[in-house]
Amino acid sequence: MRIGIVGYGNLGRGVECAIKQNPDMELVGVFTRRNPEDVKILTNDVKVYNLSETKKMKDKIDVMIICAGSATDLPKMTPELARDFNVIDSYDNHSKVGEHFERVNKAACESDHIAIISVGWDPGLFSLNRVLGNAVLPSGRDYTFWGKGVSQGHSNAVRRLEGVVDAKQYTIPIESALERVRNGDNPDLRPDEKHKRECFVVAKEGANLSKIESEIVNMPAYFAEYDTSVHFLCQEDLNKYHSGIPHGGNVIRTGNTGWNEENCALVEFSLKLDSNPEFTSSVLVAYARAAYRMKNRGITGCKTVFDVAPGDLSPMSPEELRAKML
Amino acid sequence: MRIGIVGYGNLGRGVECAIKQNPDMELVGVFTRRNPEDVKILTNDVKVYNLSETKKMKDKIDVMIICAGSATDLPKMTPELARDFNVIDSYDNHSKVGEHFERVNKAACESDHIAIISVGWDPGLFSLNRVLGNAVLPSGRDYTFWGKGVSQGHSNAVRRLEGVVDAKQYTIPIESALERVRNGDNPDLRPDEKHKRECFVVAKEGANLSKIESEIVNMPAYFAEYDTSVHFLCQEDLNKYHSGIPHGGNVIRTGNTGWNEENCALVEFSLKLDSNPEFTSSVLVAYARAAYRMKNRGITGCKTVFDVAPGDLSPMSPEELRAKML
Repeated sequence: MRIGIVGYGNLGRGVECAIKQNPDMELVGVFTRRNPEDVKILTNDVKVYNLSETKKMKDKIDVMIICAGSATDLPKMTPELARDFNVIDSYDNHSKVGEHFERVNKAACESDHIAIISVGWDPGLFSLNRVLGNAVLPSGRDYTFWGKGVSQGHSNAVRRLEGVVDAKQYTIPIESALERVRNGDNPDLRPDEKHKRECFVVAKEGANLSKIESEIVNMPAYFAEYDTSVHFLCQEDLNKYHSGIPHGGNVIRTGNTGWNEENCALVEFSLKLDSNPEFTSSVLVAYARAAYRMKNRGITGCKTVFDVAPGDLSPMSPEELRAKML
Repeated sequence: MRIGIVGYGNLGRGVECAIKQNPDMELVGVFTRRNPEDVKILTNDVKVYNLSETKKMKDKIDVMIICAGSATDLPKMTPELARDFNVIDSYDNHSKVGEHFERVNKAACESDHIAIISVGWDPGLFSLNRVLGNAVLPSGRDYTFWGKGVSQGHSNAVRRLEGVVDAKQYTIPIESALERVRNGDNPDLRPDEKHKRECFVVAKEGANLSKIESEIVNMPAYFAEYDTSVHFLCQEDLNKYHSGIPHGGNVIRTGNTGWNEENCALVEFSLKLDSNPEFTSSVLVAYARAAYRMKNRGITGCKTVFDVAPGDLSPMSPEELRAKML
């Protein structure tokens, strides 16, 4: 399988790392909007191209993995690239996924390619487990917890405040809420009863710290409704102790079985990740394998994780899977 | 979807209960080897037939769910019934699944039916999660823990001992081992370091209890290598406190991401079930839905959970799934 990467940030670099772990895959090119000479990648003997050069690689790449932002890049890039390539993206704007699907589906169908969108862990593996949980336990409730992990959006919101030099925000699930769900209490939980927030902030010299703290904890939509703690520290300590991008979470379905629904059942899927982008990339690469196989069976158009059979994600043959994994 | 049930034990009754929870499904008949008049089912106005009468229902049933034992029944029944019906079974003899697959595949292909075998939670949802974990984390380790739950095989082994009237055996995961795995220690764990065993035994009046206890804890293959505790109690208490059939477990994949595999990632899938057979049945019913849909798309032959796209398990349309579950 010959793989191309579009975009070389944390996610693109993660895809490069994941390809190294999969002997049935080969990285054949990285495409960037920057000057290719300024982009240094990890793999020897693989060329970096400008994004404008994708067309000339049309027949040399089996699947293109698009590692770009959901806000403005992917809505344009995924349909465009789907005209020339089989593509994978990690589009994560839940509320606009319908429109994105339609645009990508049109491009992929017209050009006989396959595109798998919204791949990663949420959307992605978490979505898959929501469907699984709901299918086997039709009478039940869904819970999703995120963290402990870094939220980019919340970190940025803090960084935009006057007097703030740098900041990192952690979303933390409230353990007692998680335990209530696992115990089968089926609680109604407001967002602030499921998660708390912790901010590590580097302030400008002489800045009014209590004003910054107050602006953070009272920020509507982001922090106001949550239990939020704010810690000030120097840039060196932020770099030293908070440079990682961990994340994780839990998808839980609680439901009932039996003629009078007298028995409880709990299905839980959870992730604990040192590197959120590297894990997301690992998922993208597994779905690139599935895209390649499905295309070879004549399947085209836009797909999501809901359309992909698990066996297509694995390098093993169906016989091997049945012998070793069933 | 018109569903038939073959076999009316705990599993068959569980399927009946699960059908009640799925408005897109209808139970049209239960088939038994017993005298149909002796079998009382829960659903009103549904007929019980003798197993010999399946052929006359050939055109009235979309999917037949076979609820029988893996040792001697399913190897014969699933291929036979696959000649007349789309079928689901829960074949769980891991070491012989290849042969079972071949026999069922031949019958299903020749008669243009679809058969999904080895459906349930292990094999089944656990297998699916092993494949998922291995596909996204190619460099890593697998761990499966079972329990706390009742093991039928171990309970029967105790019941066969001289002086024993009745018995129940629980398989219990060792919490400290589970924690080491979750902490990313990647321990090597022997079976007895992962699980302990607890037996509740009703002895005959005057039986030699210490002899029974010694025979249990020293029984090769079943108990000898495990930390096993034995409790004697009266039949009334066994019935009162140990009549349930709970089970559960955890499938964990620990792996590494990054160019030098410097970051850890942990994927865990876990179940906590009050009723093992009812949950297994709920899974069977969801895969019956998938079988029906796949057959309608022209897919035939023998399949496993590895071949089924998650979306096919859900009553929702692809549009609904993308809008609500992604």
